[in-house]
Amino acid sequence: MSVNTFGRVLRFTTWGESHGPALGAVVDGCPPGLEVSEGAIQPFLDARRPGTSRFTTQRREPDQVKILSGTFEGKSTGTPISLMIENTDQRSKDYSDVAKAYRPGHADYTYDAKYGLRDYRGGGRSSARETAARVAAGAIARLVIPEVSILAYVTEIGGDAIDREAFSAEEIGKNAFFCPDAWAAKRWEGLVDEARKDGSSLGAVVECVATGVPAGWGAPIYGKLDADLAAAMMGINAVKAVEIGDGFGAARLRGEQNADPMKPGESGSVEFDANHAGGIAGGISTGQPVVCRVAFKPTSSILIPQPTVTRDGDATEIATKGRHDPCVGIRGTPVVEAMMALVLADQKLLHRAQCG
Amino acid sequence: MSVNTFGRVLRFTTWGESHGPALGAVVDGCPPGLEVSEGAIQPFLDARRPGTSRFTTQRREPDQVKILSGTFEGKSTGTPISLMIENTDQRSKDYSDVAKAYRPGHADYTYDAKYGLRDYRGGGRSSARETAARVAAGAIARLVIPEVSILAYVTEIGGDAIDREAFSAEEIGKNAFFCPDAWAAKRWEGLVDEARKDGSSLGAVVECVATGVPAGWGAPIYGKLDADLAAAMMGINAVKAVEIGDGFGAARLRGEQNADPMKPGESGSVEFDANHAGGIAGGISTGQPVVCRVAFKPTSSILIPQPTVTRDGDATEIATKGRHDPCVGIRGTPVVEAMMALVLADQKLLHRAQCG
Amino acid sequence: MSVNTFGRVLRFTTWGESHGPALGAVVDGCPPGLEVSEGAIQPFLDARRPGTSRFTTQRREPDQVKILSGTFEGKSTGTPISLMIENTDQRSKDYSDVAKAYRPGHADYTYDAKYGLRDYRGGGRSSARETAARVAAGAIARLVIPEVSILAYVTEIGGDAIDREAFSAEEIGKNAFFCPDAWAAKRWEGLVDEARKDGSSLGAVVECVATGVPAGWGAPIYGKLDADLAAAMMGINAVKAVEIGDGFGAARLRGEQNADPMKPGESGSVEFDANHAGGIAGGISTGQPVVCRVAFKPTSSILIPQPTVTRDGDATEIATKGRHDPCVGIRGTPVVEAMMALVLADQKLLHRAQCG
Amino acid sequence: MSVNTFGRVLRFTTWGESHGPALGAVVDGCPPGLEVSEGAIQPFLDARRPGTSRFTTQRREPDQVKILSGTFEGKSTGTPISLMIENTDQRSKDYSDVAKAYRPGHADYTYDAKYGLRDYRGGGRSSARETAARVAAGAIARLVIPEVSILAYVTEIGGDAIDREAFSAEEIGKNAFFCPDAWAAKRWEGLVDEARKDGSSLGAVVECVATGVPAGWGAPIYGKLDADLAAAMMGINAVKAVEIGDGFGAARLRGEQNADPMKPGESGSVEFDANHAGGIAGGISTGQPVVCRVAFKPTSSILIPQPTVTRDGDATEIATKGRHDPCVGIRGTPVVEAMMALVLADQKLLHRAQCG
Repeated sequence: MSVNTFGRVLRFTTWGESHGPALGAVVDGCPPGLEVSEGAIQPFLDARRPGTSRFTTQRREPDQVKILSGTFEGKSTGTPISLMIENTDQRSKDYSDVAKAYRPGHADYTYDAKYGLRDYRGGGRSSARETAARVAAGAIARLVIPEVSILAYVTEIGGDAIDREAFSAEEIGKNAFFCPDAWAAKRWEGLVDEARKDGSSLGAVVECVATGVPAGWGAPIYGKLDADLAAAMMGINAVKAVEIGDGFGAARLRGEQNADPMKPGESGSVEFDANHAGGIAGGISTGQPVVCRVAFKPTSSILIPQPTVTRDGDATEIATKGRHDPCVGIRGTPVVEAMMALVLADQKLLHRAQCG
Repeated sequence: MSVNTFGRVLRFTTWGESHGPALGAVVDGCPPGLEVSEGAIQPFLDARRPGTSRFTTQRREPDQVKILSGTFEGKSTGTPISLMIENTDQRSKDYSDVAKAYRPGHADYTYDAKYGLRDYRGGGRSSARETAARVAAGAIARLVIPEVSILAYVTEIGGDAIDREAFSAEEIGKNAFFCPDAWAAKRWEGLVDEARKDGSSLGAVVECVATGVPAGWGAPIYGKLDADLAAAMMGINAVKAVEIGDGFGAARLRGEQNADPMKPGESGSVEFDANHAGGIAGGISTGQPVVCRVAFKPTSSILIPQPTVTRDGDATEIATKGRHDPCVGIRGTPVVEAMMALVLADQKLLHRAQCG
Repeated sequence: MSVNTFGRVLRFTTWGESHGPALGAVVDGCPPGLEVSEGAIQPFLDARRPGTSRFTTQRREPDQVKILSGTFEGKSTGTPISLMIENTDQRSKDYSDVAKAYRPGHADYTYDAKYGLRDYRGGGRSSARETAARVAAGAIARLVIPEVSILAYVTEIGGDAIDREAFSAEEIGKNAFFCPDAWAAKRWEGLVDEARKDGSSLGAVVECVATGVPAGWGAPIYGKLDADLAAAMMGINAVKAVEIGDGFGAARLRGEQNADPMKPGESGSVEFDANHAGGIAGGISTGQPVVCRVAFKPTSSILIPQPTVTRDGDATEIATKGRHDPCVGIRGTPVVEAMMALVLADQKLLHRAQCG
Repeated sequence: MSVNTFGRVLRFTTWGESHGPALGAVVDGCPPGLEVSEGAIQPFLDARRPGTSRFTTQRREPDQVKILSGTFEGKSTGTPISLMIENTDQRSKDYSDVAKAYRPGHADYTYDAKYGLRDYRGGGRSSARETAARVAAGAIARLVIPEVSILAYVTEIGGDAIDREAFSAEEIGKNAFFCPDAWAAKRWEGLVDEARKDGSSLGAVVECVATGVPAGWGAPIYGKLDADLAAAMMGINAVKAVEIGDGFGAARLRGEQNADPMKPGESGSVEFDANHAGGIAGGISTGQPVVCRVAFKPTSSILIPQPTVTRDGDATEIATKGRHDPCVGIRGTPVVEAMMALVLADQKLLHRAQCG
């Protein structure tokens, strides 16, 4: 409900700007007794961390998380867990360009239009650095849903898609792109390098699959699992589209093609012969893998000058100087996983509240 | 926050099942002094009403709305507006099939898995009849944002898309498909008729454009205008995907192609040379038209039998008998408009709260 | 969060004006499988019903509740339960006085100041008739907490208090005052009759005790059980004060007097030697009875003329004509019970969400 | 809605334990452009700071607030304001007593009953140190309502009340008790000293008056201004009762005594001849001063041993060692002011949202 807070029963509130002293998240409603430690959070932050390859921004932030509250002797106490990440690489830089003129594709103009002022240093609150706080919160959410495995990966960069036949989950961690197809990863090296050298940027598509979600999570009508996922994913910086299951593809199927036929499973359970629905029907999980796909636009920060206006309303041009991600979707992948975890954990607890 | 409630400051709560005595919406937070009357709501319900052509379900419901509270002498008083629509065509029907077995693609199985029981008559709460309540609430939301015009239309049915060059807003009301392209409408007659006769169904894509939204509506980080729209749209029955602006297309553009260059407009305003962003940057409106696109899956109710299981876990087959929409996306169009209105009205008031 | 909605996980939204066609409540988040029927709700409405003795208003409303949604075959389905009560005794009356001038102690002036208009017939939304919706919702809440017994009674009218030594729970239902002390009930007959004949009114104090609440319900810091009760009770029409446990009396005790010493109970449980705390410590239930006390001001509707101003700002006098409750606290008693039930049921579910 | 979050449109979330590294608040929804600085917050924290006289705990905490986000060049940007206060005087102490046994009147037992574990050091999350975060957030709320003046003061300690005839606002800052009556302050020195020497503690009553609140703030039915105040105040550590206006006194008046007659004021405004209502009617401000009164129980930490049980269920005795506030109501006074400011600021923005 609160605009910097996400969730109903398991909720997190984030704060912080790109160039402030720190950023953080307060996670509220966490069940007690979970093994919450910095060590359980840090690996996820490391996966999102900038500067790990030439395909991401060269900003170097250790992104070390500190737990300031909510745990005792290594366990969650049920009280708010305050997580803080200090900003350490706020390079002294000349921001006079950005202070004066609006970068197209960025939130510069809209923040000014809304608030009448803005922290222009590194994008302020609208910087994708905020997503570090989501990733930290997401690590806690994972502890709430140990029955669930979440895996996100890039399926497309700059319009070049993976070969589904070549999918290998093990491959994902072996390249700089969270790519499950070794050959695609090779191709993307060239694509991204080229875009980077051109001072341009590329978009990407990220897919996320959660397995182990039991049937019954999700809450009709305005707390549907798919609606929550849509909000969670669309709210990630640079995301412009979200699909559940077959998504737009479903709109091109006939009813009998799109049906997920059911059959008796082992020991009274139900099995499905297909998963066009992406594991959700009527806003509630079916027990199949929950599948969503999100489109990241190309990074708006590019070295190629763009026409724009100054704060005073004069025509000018602006180009991003210095460090940027040539394809923001890559580092968006751990963020997608985090948001999936946060939605599922919240819905698990909400389900427990109503249905015991 | 509440699962049958949508919105933050302007909120509506819906209730009702397909075959109960009535359904309704309670709209809370509405500004006082607006001219709220049944006459201002009914036209939108009529646009969504079933039985108006052979391309929609033959269920015949007048869908007459009654205002039970919240107005005085034709004006909103600021107190909750209770809207009720009586169900009148709950045809006596044999529901023993649906009571016993789960229809694939429907929420039958998931409601049972979640709640342990379900009202199986006509889909109960998961029926698309619930969207009548949204449309009624949306009519009130429109009164809150007189500066905004909202237009939704079908751009694709069964994979057959309109010709953007042939777009005519006037055409939309002239055919049974909310189709802005006269030729496409013609083609769709054949497509939908064929699917109907086959006992099958088709998916659709609906686009919605809101013009007149000033720059500054929307609330980062977890109340972004696009995230709200994504949740609003994905929560509509049968919707499987949502795009803002170029959506998935943006993921295939390079940074300089996707940029929306800015230039000085009249009297100090800002103009844009493109709208790839769909009128939203950083979660806040830019002043350009807000554009979103949603994918409706083919109606799950089809006459073609599908393998499924009974409540007792035995294998069986099930087919829908009787009335159904061959393409649920058609009647989804007024619902998409309603959700757009509800999101915008809520964000307008939220913006006023924080920024005056 | 919503202003006409109460609760977090079990939530209810009320709507309706004194002289509209009906009023109602939508109860959301109710666990499935509970035996929800009109018969389970009506007795509580009957207890609050006007016109049952000469000590309450002579408005005659049957206050028959109808369930419009959320149940199937007599059981809650987990979807919103819509409850409606038709207004039947909106006597045609001359409201020109109230339309023109503000009744002191009523919300006439404040509604006009806030909204710029108001439904002046019978107080509109600010009428205590709204509490019928709370009582109906409260009846459902009771089904959620079968382990808890709730009892409210009047301990004081017009400053005349019961004798605690003479307390008899059985007596409560035997008189027109929900009075647990037979002698006090006798005295109050005279007091209330006298006030009524004078065209005046009296205040009252109502106490409410919930037994069977296990230790552990309540949620620090801003969802404390006592804070929720305070909001729930203070929000009842005419309530001006709320105490938990010893309340103001606790402020006059020394630390060692106010302590509730603990001792081992049966089979590992804990027992207390006192309950100054009213069953709540740190915002969480202790397992002792939850005790609160609320002060009702004298009914603002009196026959004795009061100086006031017209809508146009001129000095005038106004007096209530016709039917009114000489002591609104009496019929407030079932409302206090309902709010206690609603708070406890919500906290039970919230506890289950977080702590399993 | 969130249990560690307070407010609807202006919201704050607090985190932190008594003996963790820090505590803090995240204030969300703050209007942009306000002059938010550490210097604007610190004076309020200093007023609440421990160790300033022999009548408060000797824990010495500088309680220096740091702003970590949400401001730029000294102004609020509209993004979350993160406030942090480091804990510096977590004296190394033997907590084995408190770890093993439950202190009566504290939340030790209830936290254990709820969560199954607790941070027993200094009371953990249930410590009144949390109120420092409220005071910091309250300082920001004050900036949102410059038209309002808020003044809280102690009217009673240990049952010894001030003389209303001797009331002097100037006196409040001149003694260690926030006492507006110089003679009462003198008497209280003796009372509190005596209690402290006895190892006992005293309760207190604090009154808070907000002037300058215009008519029209507050939101019926479940967002009433008085209900919000009741929740806000009852949620403060050690508070057991809340009154608005005459409170329990109103229950002893007759209708004509309790009425607040109205008369024409200057330039079209309305004036009142009394304020029994405490500035609120129907949940909405009347334009008169908003008055509330809260009862603080005596500090539960006392040196006098009390019977209790161990975590293992055995009988034992426990007494507080070392530092404690002999009368927690004294330092509660700035907290009461902060909560008043937070409620009013939230309602101001909520009113603006709905009514423009």
